[in-house]
Amino acid sequence: MFTNVEHIGIAVRDLASSNDLFSKLLNVLPYKAEAVEAEGVTTSFFRVNQTKIELLEATTPDSPIAKFLEKKGEGIHHLAFEVDDIEAEMERLKTEGFTLLNEVPKRGADNKLVCFLHPKGTNGVLIELCQEIKEG
Amino acid sequence: MFTNVEHIGIAVRDLASSNDLFSKLLNVLPYKAEAVEAEGVTTSFFRVNQTKIELLEATTPDSPIAKFLEKKGEGIHHLAFEVDDIEAEMERLKTEGFTLLNEVPKRGADNKLVCFLHPKGTNGVLIELCQEIKEG
Repeated sequence: MFTNVEHIGIAVRDLASSNDLFSKLLNVLPYKAEAVEAEGVTTSFFRVNQTKIELLEATTPDSPIAKFLEKKGEGIHHLAFEVDDIEAEMERLKTEGFTLLNEVPKRGADNKLVCFLHPKGTNGVLIELCQEIKEG
Repeated sequence: MFTNVEHIGIAVRDLASSNDLFSKLLNVLPYKAEAVEAEGVTTSFFRVNQTKIELLEATTPDSPIAKFLEKKGEGIHHLAFEVDDIEAEMERLKTEGFTLLNEVPKRGADNKLVCFLHPKGTNGVLIELCQEIKEG
């Protein structure tokens, strides 16, 4: 089940200046920054009610964010939904004909297991499913 | 104050087939459709927790959505935040240096007063502020 719009990911060229910009826009400070080395990104998070705004800056030239910026420029990169059972949702969506970009959940930012859907099958929108990792 | 991510607007070429697609994706049916003649669009709304997904199809060739589709193809068109006092937020954001696309709130879909910010000043993201119209 899709339980929430967990976050909206926005690709930016310069995280420091975009942090300033979104702090002014939302009138709130980012509550954390986090590097995801496997994805070649540094991220910054703002909270608005139950949804987060995630700014993403590339740290390597072959990072998906670097490629996105090169092709499309700055802007919304992906839309992430919290799900209650990521493996069940991945199975359901595969059966519905959606194309998963990873066949098993992988570790993302913000203590989440994540899976991306190919935007060709979702009207050009890169969709992320995410589920909080419960430790212990 | 920004109180919620009210909706994410997605530009689509064919609302009927995209309604099917998002119904499968979100596993929920759209709860309403609405034409906004002034903007040359027909819209369809899905609810996920406190946030809506708004699909937008152009109804006229000079609609902003028609132009967006022509230039960028299907995908996320705008990000809308609910605010508690739209005029106060417009004033605050103007003072912060953001460019408003309309100087007074205008009537949008879903019984809202809305104002858009120029994406050149917001890392390429078209931001909408919206506030529910209280009748009576």
